[in-house]
Amino acid sequence: MAKKLTPRKKDYSKWYNELVVAADLAENSQVRGCMTIKPHGYAIWEKMQRQLDDMFKATGHRNAYFPLFVPKSMFETEEKNAEGFAKECAVVTHYRLKKDPENASKLIVDPEAKLEEELIVRPTSEAIIWNTYKGWIQSYRDLPIKINQWANVVRWEMRTRLFLRTAEFLWQEGHTAHATREEAVEEAQQMNKIYADFAEHFMGIPVIQGVKTESERFAGAEETYCIEALMQDGKALQAGTSHFLGQNFAKAFEVKYTSSEGKQDYVWATSWGVSTRLMGALIMTHSDDNGLVLPPNLAPVQVVIVPIYKTQEQHEKVAAVALDLVEQLRKLNISVEFDNRDTQTPGWKFAQHEMQGVPVRIAIGPKDLEKGTVEVARRDTLAKTFMAQEEVVEKVPILMSEIQKNLFERARQFRDEHITEVNSFEEFKQVLKEKGGFISAHWDGTPQTEEKIKQLTKATIRCIPLEGEKEEGKCVFTGAPSAQRVLFAKAY
Amino acid sequence: MAKKLTPRKKDYSKWYNELVVAADLAENSQVRGCMTIKPHGYAIWEKMQRQLDDMFKATGHRNAYFPLFVPKSMFETEEKNAEGFAKECAVVTHYRLKKDPENASKLIVDPEAKLEEELIVRPTSEAIIWNTYKGWIQSYRDLPIKINQWANVVRWEMRTRLFLRTAEFLWQEGHTAHATREEAVEEAQQMNKIYADFAEHFMGIPVIQGVKTESERFAGAEETYCIEALMQDGKALQAGTSHFLGQNFAKAFEVKYTSSEGKQDYVWATSWGVSTRLMGALIMTHSDDNGLVLPPNLAPVQVVIVPIYKTQEQHEKVAAVALDLVEQLRKLNISVEFDNRDTQTPGWKFAQHEMQGVPVRIAIGPKDLEKGTVEVARRDTLAKTFMAQEEVVEKVPILMSEIQKNLFERARQFRDEHITEVNSFEEFKQVLKEKGGFISAHWDGTPQTEEKIKQLTKATIRCIPLEGEKEEGKCVFTGAPSAQRVLFAKAY
Repeated sequence: MAKKLTPRKKDYSKWYNELVVAADLAENSQVRGCMTIKPHGYAIWEKMQRQLDDMFKATGHRNAYFPLFVPKSMFETEEKNAEGFAKECAVVTHYRLKKDPENASKLIVDPEAKLEEELIVRPTSEAIIWNTYKGWIQSYRDLPIKINQWANVVRWEMRTRLFLRTAEFLWQEGHTAHATREEAVEEAQQMNKIYADFAEHFMGIPVIQGVKTESERFAGAEETYCIEALMQDGKALQAGTSHFLGQNFAKAFEVKYTSSEGKQDYVWATSWGVSTRLMGALIMTHSDDNGLVLPPNLAPVQVVIVPIYKTQEQHEKVAAVALDLVEQLRKLNISVEFDNRDTQTPGWKFAQHEMQGVPVRIAIGPKDLEKGTVEVARRDTLAKTFMAQEEVVEKVPILMSEIQKNLFERARQFRDEHITEVNSFEEFKQVLKEKGGFISAHWDGTPQTEEKIKQLTKATIRCIPLEGEKEEGKCVFTGAPSAQRVLFAKAY
Repeated sequence: MAKKLTPRKKDYSKWYNELVVAADLAENSQVRGCMTIKPHGYAIWEKMQRQLDDMFKATGHRNAYFPLFVPKSMFETEEKNAEGFAKECAVVTHYRLKKDPENASKLIVDPEAKLEEELIVRPTSEAIIWNTYKGWIQSYRDLPIKINQWANVVRWEMRTRLFLRTAEFLWQEGHTAHATREEAVEEAQQMNKIYADFAEHFMGIPVIQGVKTESERFAGAEETYCIEALMQDGKALQAGTSHFLGQNFAKAFEVKYTSSEGKQDYVWATSWGVSTRLMGALIMTHSDDNGLVLPPNLAPVQVVIVPIYKTQEQHEKVAAVALDLVEQLRKLNISVEFDNRDTQTPGWKFAQHEMQGVPVRIAIGPKDLEKGTVEVARRDTLAKTFMAQEEVVEKVPILMSEIQKNLFERARQFRDEHITEVNSFEEFKQVLKEKGGFISAHWDGTPQTEEKIKQLTKATIRCIPLEGEKEEGKCVFTGAPSAQRVLFAKAY
């Protein structure tokens, strides 16, 4: 734990890469673009999964599992979707290896085991799922279908970064089928709200809910709802999306239902997902130059107790106090660990727990025994205070709520300070260059203007916000009329 | 729900296939050998996952995630393991599709996007994980590493069957690294015991713990521990395995550690796994001609309440009683559903819940309102009784325990009745043909005899049991000396 991170101000990107590894979250594997998610990183992902899963189930969704592979002909059925992902597809062409006739200890792909039809490793599962739903849906009685899947997907990205962009990643993908357009739109909106709720109340990440412009929409969607977060370096990060797919997939896969009046119609669809990318959002919202900062709701270990001692007698007495606190805090469902390793010094342990983002660290030493106190350090503010031993069980849960709240408020304040209204393209460029963050500007609604601004500034329209006042104005680039301001930013 | 299953006595295999689909557990997908796990099947798998995950964590294991793909050169590093799986490997050779120049709506694999090195879709993860552990292990301080992964794996099987043998399946795979042989052996044994405990106490499936013969061992293992269960048709099913891998993978991947005395040595390894195959074991242990039978511990819905009424007034009164019971039972953490659908008749609902294995069904009709009773039907025995409404909350939890216990005892009795000691090869063949089940026989310990018996009878040695008395004797086939009886059976 001697290694210090590159400070954020010096090189934010380097800081991020170093932190992910130093905090034991993930590392690059020797498989191009694929990461290994280490136990500490995975434990945080599990906390996200559990919470999201509960939220999905509470709104009537059930989990299922669909195949990893999609036959090429099935994949290409919905053309826009297929075209959108074609350039990133890992393709299975053979199903067997055999001994290399020239080197018995090596294996070669058996040329005789070529598949008749290539299989695509799913980059997303609309095709395979709609092909399956076709067999499940005959009448309105079979609707709605509200299914979620936890899975790995593969998108062959050329430039990868741990959690943010990897060839393989973990995610959940919801896929629902409805009898009416209204119901499907409501579902897509509801899931986007659930994502926003999860990001803000559970992860402490303030987000803006909006819809994507046509050019930023999911391939095959009629409308893409999204939540957009702001990272500490002023770049935006898309943290979740929810798509209203219209009847596109139902038409491509011929999925019709008979209504209660006996009429036949195509089914209406949504899909929605968040991924391990959220880990990147988490890191870049809260962490500091000392390492990861975790909101208590996501911390696998919420409180760590480190004993400080010189003699064995001291050790025993300190341990007795510590174990008593462990027992009492666990009764309150607080995840607490007594770090009693004798292979590391207290200083080393402090640095490690700080790097890994444990929200509260309690140190107990010989002087604390005399005074009946413990030293409590908050990871979010780095503040240290002394607390009477008998107050710990009462105060720590309150401290947890405070930290959770503080992290969100701190991030919201930063985010709010980095939404800048601009009214000219000069101002646009200046703010983007000097301040970063979201730029709230009028736009004429055309893909052409969007594309030109992107080419000139690298900023894209992150979303057309759903909340707030709709103020009319003139496009910052063309001067043409605009119905409302949209949010531009450079993005991850 | 009008469809009846083929009776087990008529065609067990057909009954199984029909049940899996009729109970909404899974179905074949259009992707060769890959299944779709439907919500009801997946909900049962989730219950298994949750329980196993808790048991793994309680014994000091943590979850992580490693890449789906294994480069071919990495895959072939441990030769025995590579050879064992080579014939079943799905291979990714390309990473991009492009528009078919001859048909713009079709896609073809882009020949220019050929990978320099082929990627194997993991059939198991020893290779990728030991390649990773190499970077994590320097000294004894880094040991033990005790990691589990929940993942999908692919083994290209030619003949597939839902849950029992599919090209893609879901599983967990534990991979641990230890400083000493003893510790690794203990770990492998401990995990096999955890599997046995889980199978018996949670799934209600009696199992025999044993070790595999050399020819049945995992490719690359020095010892394979296993749990073997007996299905209703007299065939055995391997329900979980735990491997002591010796230093095979450490040597192949050059993973050494420095001991506290400063000596260098290779690390000792284990791996262990159970898969969605357990769903097959569950079905073929407990179910009957009416459909799935679930032990309460695994039932997504433990109690279903079906209202019976003709008038709206009756409906309201019945619903009031039902909802009161729902509320009270939920407080006891019993998973209860009020099936208030108005699109289906009570008879249809009864058949559906029976098919899906709900342990307890409560029906409430107008007569029950008069008498203050409910009708309670047990899925395991199909027995129906009347119960006073005020007794339900007290008695249902007891009933749950009874059903859980009864299913295990029933299966154990069947299993015990189907372990037959034989002392001649004639007897061996007769019992195998007429009775089935496990045949407890002496064997001379040679792979040759094992192979000959397999060729002549299709029975294999399921395991060398770890428990029970070790009686010496003479091989049932060759007459050569034998140290203990082993268990033969035909197997899934």
